[in-house]
Amino acid sequence: MLKVPPHQVAGHEAVDGKLGPLVDESGRFYKPLQDDERGSNEVAFYRSLSTNSGIPEHIRRFFPTFYGTQLIEASDGSGLKPHLVLKDIARGQVNPSIMDVKIGSRTWAPEASQEYVEKCLKKDRESSSLPLGFRISGLQIFRSKELGFWKPGKKAAQKFSTEEVKLVLRRFVSSNTLNDLDLEPDCALASTVYGGSAGILSQLLELKAWFEDQTIYHFYACSILVVFEKELALEGRNPGAQIKLIDFAHVYEGRGVIDHNFLGGLCSLIKFISEILTAPNEGKTEVSAKDDQKNLTNTDNGVVADQENLIKSGNGIVADQKNLTSTDNDVS
Amino acid sequence: MLKVPPHQVAGHEAVDGKLGPLVDESGRFYKPLQDDERGSNEVAFYRSLSTNSGIPEHIRRFFPTFYGTQLIEASDGSGLKPHLVLKDIARGQVNPSIMDVKIGSRTWAPEASQEYVEKCLKKDRESSSLPLGFRISGLQIFRSKELGFWKPGKKAAQKFSTEEVKLVLRRFVSSNTLNDLDLEPDCALASTVYGGSAGILSQLLELKAWFEDQTIYHFYACSILVVFEKELALEGRNPGAQIKLIDFAHVYEGRGVIDHNFLGGLCSLIKFISEILTAPNEGKTEVSAKDDQKNLTNTDNGVVADQENLIKSGNGIVADQKNLTSTDNDVS
Repeated sequence: MLKVPPHQVAGHEAVDGKLGPLVDESGRFYKPLQDDERGSNEVAFYRSLSTNSGIPEHIRRFFPTFYGTQLIEASDGSGLKPHLVLKDIARGQVNPSIMDVKIGSRTWAPEASQEYVEKCLKKDRESSSLPLGFRISGLQIFRSKELGFWKPGKKAAQKFSTEEVKLVLRRFVSSNTLNDLDLEPDCALASTVYGGSAGILSQLLELKAWFEDQTIYHFYACSILVVFEKELALEGRNPGAQIKLIDFAHVYEGRGVIDHNFLGGLCSLIKFISEILTAPNEGKTEVSAKDDQKNLTNTDNGVVADQENLIKSGNGIVADQKNLTSTDNDVS
Repeated sequence: MLKVPPHQVAGHEAVDGKLGPLVDESGRFYKPLQDDERGSNEVAFYRSLSTNSGIPEHIRRFFPTFYGTQLIEASDGSGLKPHLVLKDIARGQVNPSIMDVKIGSRTWAPEASQEYVEKCLKKDRESSSLPLGFRISGLQIFRSKELGFWKPGKKAAQKFSTEEVKLVLRRFVSSNTLNDLDLEPDCALASTVYGGSAGILSQLLELKAWFEDQTIYHFYACSILVVFEKELALEGRNPGAQIKLIDFAHVYEGRGVIDHNFLGGLCSLIKFISEILTAPNEGKTEVSAKDDQKNLTNTDNGVVADQENLIKSGNGIVADQKNLTSTDNDVS
């Protein structure tokens, strides 16, 4: 019996007669192959990964298990369609907190067509991809059985500002999102989820070490899914925090060059998470967030004002919000 | 007495009545300030750097010493113009081998104007910046007193392919560029120049560690200058191998985010140099290079053919030179 995945946070969804992924009760995830080359690219990537002996086991675990492809009834009622068959990452999770982080300041390959480059570049510039080296494509944070999840709209998530991304990364591991999203995140679960030898930061650092060396693949528009079970963390039990790489429709050959675009974005994410572990109570911002809101609203003294406060005047750096322009150009 | 710098490999040159940098006999380097905001930006950066207590000493040494600004007679005869006054990096060097490596797959800031973005993006795509995360803006490699330097044209250098960049990085530390540039580089000086605790790789790794952490500055279109004295290396003496960061007309505030664009490109350069140290005799290519040539010519069985050989067909990766398209799409 196929059904819509209960915990999808990004990508096309199989709702309202649309085409999207499905899951079954045996723990398999069926992702419809896109008709164009993206579908065949993703299959080619999974096949390549399956047979490539150059991928270390401790890295292989960061990729979803691949079972091949299968024709199944598509969710949009269009009949039998080919689907990728993968292991369902959220299988067995009760109320997982999930974040889909698209890595790389550039989501297009150098070889891409001009038209595709322009389309992607526009999105990269409008989102946090360009400034941060990654963007949050979607997320859900568990609050409580009564309140369910905090799940900002995908479009809103992609346009989070730097300060909002930092806030969300802190909120993701906080206990006080239960009742009042206006509260300053307490980061009470940071050390359990992000920290420790099996935590998210350790996993990201393992991935980073591989990316500093591997020249097999370049991953464009690929995401890191971050998942953990918040209720377990709150009870002091192992929350099963894990990362998985997903979405390989735009993987290219590395040809002897490291994936510097992915690596740079990954290091940026690592830096943010490290800062939360080092100083969980710092980086306070006053972003107002309400139950039903689709994006984080800037208040008068909130994010926008904070950003302006970063600008210093005088003969130091920086006289201008956009650029290092010295107003006092005392050249003698 | 001001004169044209004898060892400039990139940027505007003060020849044929053009505006360019000058040096004096006391070891100072005078760089004319560009009229637009680039000039004032670069001054603002040097001032900020001078006064910023957050820059560790072991990192500060990678920046040129800044003595302020001064009005001097411009090289193009246009009269007194403001110049940056810096310590001349090549001062005291007899026949330095020099490489100017512009770091980052992107040479423009997210905040840049659309017009500027388009101009830079075109250059990034036409050069190795986009695929490699850096491009060689210019170089000179000392051959011998009789033969002088091997100095490819700047335009040619910027368009080096991946294989050509790898070859040039090997040739840079080879002894057999003396007489015959057709020879396979022997990398005889690799361990002396790139290797060792004071070598180029160690310095690049120190810089990398800083870039993984620092969120003060973002460096766009900034170069790493790599310099050493080949004759000393050939004599088994300390060749004074050093890196310097130069060109700060496009430095922006980091605002709490690492410079993932610079870091990614730096890691890519580090990977190439590490490979030369690990396997100095590998990566053989058959790029023909003659004394007077302005670019590296591909021979029939040279770089182009080699690149095509990287493509594998079948059900593995990859059926298509540009993309991961599986021709055999046996979805069942």
